[in-house]
Amino acid sequence: MVSGAGWRLSVSISNCTLLNLPFRTKRRQFPICTACTVRSEISLSVGARLIPHPRKVERGGEDAFFISGENGVLAVADGVSGWAERKVDPALFSRELMSHVSNFFADEEVNCDPQILLRKSHEATTSMGSATALFAMMEKNGTLKIAHVGDCGLRIIRKGQVIFTSCPQEHYFDCPYQISSESIGQTYEDATVCSIKLKEQDIIVMGSDGLFDNVFDSEILSEISKFQDMAEAAKELAELASNHSKDFYFDSPFSIESRNRGFDVEWWEKLLGKKLTGGKLDDITVIVAQVVKASGEQ
Amino acid sequence: MVSGAGWRLSVSISNCTLLNLPFRTKRRQFPICTACTVRSEISLSVGARLIPHPRKVERGGEDAFFISGENGVLAVADGVSGWAERKVDPALFSRELMSHVSNFFADEEVNCDPQILLRKSHEATTSMGSATALFAMMEKNGTLKIAHVGDCGLRIIRKGQVIFTSCPQEHYFDCPYQISSESIGQTYEDATVCSIKLKEQDIIVMGSDGLFDNVFDSEILSEISKFQDMAEAAKELAELASNHSKDFYFDSPFSIESRNRGFDVEWWEKLLGKKLTGGKLDDITVIVAQVVKASGEQ
Repeated sequence: MVSGAGWRLSVSISNCTLLNLPFRTKRRQFPICTACTVRSEISLSVGARLIPHPRKVERGGEDAFFISGENGVLAVADGVSGWAERKVDPALFSRELMSHVSNFFADEEVNCDPQILLRKSHEATTSMGSATALFAMMEKNGTLKIAHVGDCGLRIIRKGQVIFTSCPQEHYFDCPYQISSESIGQTYEDATVCSIKLKEQDIIVMGSDGLFDNVFDSEILSEISKFQDMAEAAKELAELASNHSKDFYFDSPFSIESRNRGFDVEWWEKLLGKKLTGGKLDDITVIVAQVVKASGEQ
Repeated sequence: MVSGAGWRLSVSISNCTLLNLPFRTKRRQFPICTACTVRSEISLSVGARLIPHPRKVERGGEDAFFISGENGVLAVADGVSGWAERKVDPALFSRELMSHVSNFFADEEVNCDPQILLRKSHEATTSMGSATALFAMMEKNGTLKIAHVGDCGLRIIRKGQVIFTSCPQEHYFDCPYQISSESIGQTYEDATVCSIKLKEQDIIVMGSDGLFDNVFDSEILSEISKFQDMAEAAKELAELASNHSKDFYFDSPFSIESRNRGFDVEWWEKLLGKKLTGGKLDDITVIVAQVVKASGEQ
């Protein structure tokens, strides 16, 4: 189990196989179903990297995460920075929330249900604040169960393609759903709850919006393809996000979405050919995990 | 159960609720868990619309679908048109595949698993051909289980937001994964298999790539918000997709993706300020379904 730092394990990543259109004459034969049998003895090889917002480096930023590769548990929380205006440290809530994950993930009532883990971790908090959060738990048969509130995100990559993506929930632009110490916030009941059947070598990329607002999925695919080491992959993705976040001229996912939502430069700047560009300065948390055999490769 | 035509039932659609940031002082209270109890007596209110490719109207196009709202079963298949070059009617395979769904969806072995339904329906085919396909089955507790191969798509809309989206699988640009009569094609083992917990009033929008290549998610949200009748919503979405598909100047999801993949007008046309635009002529299938109480509202 790790909070706040990654570790490394070497595993291989398969690349996309290109096939031609299926114009062959051999009629398909149907073997006995094997994909439906329960797979056992798999776990996650995990790397993680957290880069705080440049103005929050001394306090370590307001993101927090929890990973336990051998138990297939991944979680990330992003403290809502608006609490600073009320003299509340926004990091307290997200960090406390993540600290409770280790107490409850093996709880009998949780029973590998991340929505219940979210509820119990939230219930246990005493800090003031709020956070977006994503909890993921992999069952031993390879099913990854996900519960998330707000705009922490998750992608699944298989054979060089994104085969699953989470969708952020928001009240309005740049105001995500958030679990909170206050009664007006969201709870586990507002979580989007879904699951996906994983296969060996599948890669999970998850993180705070600091990653997904600054890095396109196509870039994630490109970066992930370069590394066999999940810690290295997480480090490089976080650094790419950090570099983009500080680049005024990068046309980031966040700047494109901003323009789509009607936020742009002044009209007279548009006449000069300008448009709203740039990354989004933020805390950046990246977790990269690959499905591996529990023994042997570890 | 319906293949190839929609029906209408009136139900209400909830809109997005805007909240302020959660700066209130009342500490959250945690009620006894209710969201985790099994919900019963829900089904789907469904509408569907199929508009064939303009050059395939006489033969009815090459898409096919199956819907059974009361049993929570939705399926769509898109016959791969390349088979026409081999003098094989591309509609045969997709239609036969869909015709088998009615035979197997209640099968004990299927047991509400769309991946097994896909396998059994595929195994039963005798036609030559191939198709992309998406199978969805809703359990009585509200969990929608999905298995899909290729670029038929699905969105879940909750309170005016897309909270779930399927990701297309492809060998390369515009060559999707496809289940096939031939051994080189994909099978149920290649399906992306996932599930999502639905709530009453959630709306499922699914269809062939003819919908998602021509209509943006933001347009789907906008159109869906106008209708309480799922058949009307499906009809309008299909007509919007059809209109866009014939519009040379519409900057469609397909044209944007084409440019992103490096397909564009000639360099000298770019000098004149041109870019690749236009919709994609295709068969268009749209299924819109809302989660409703099984009695009362129907």
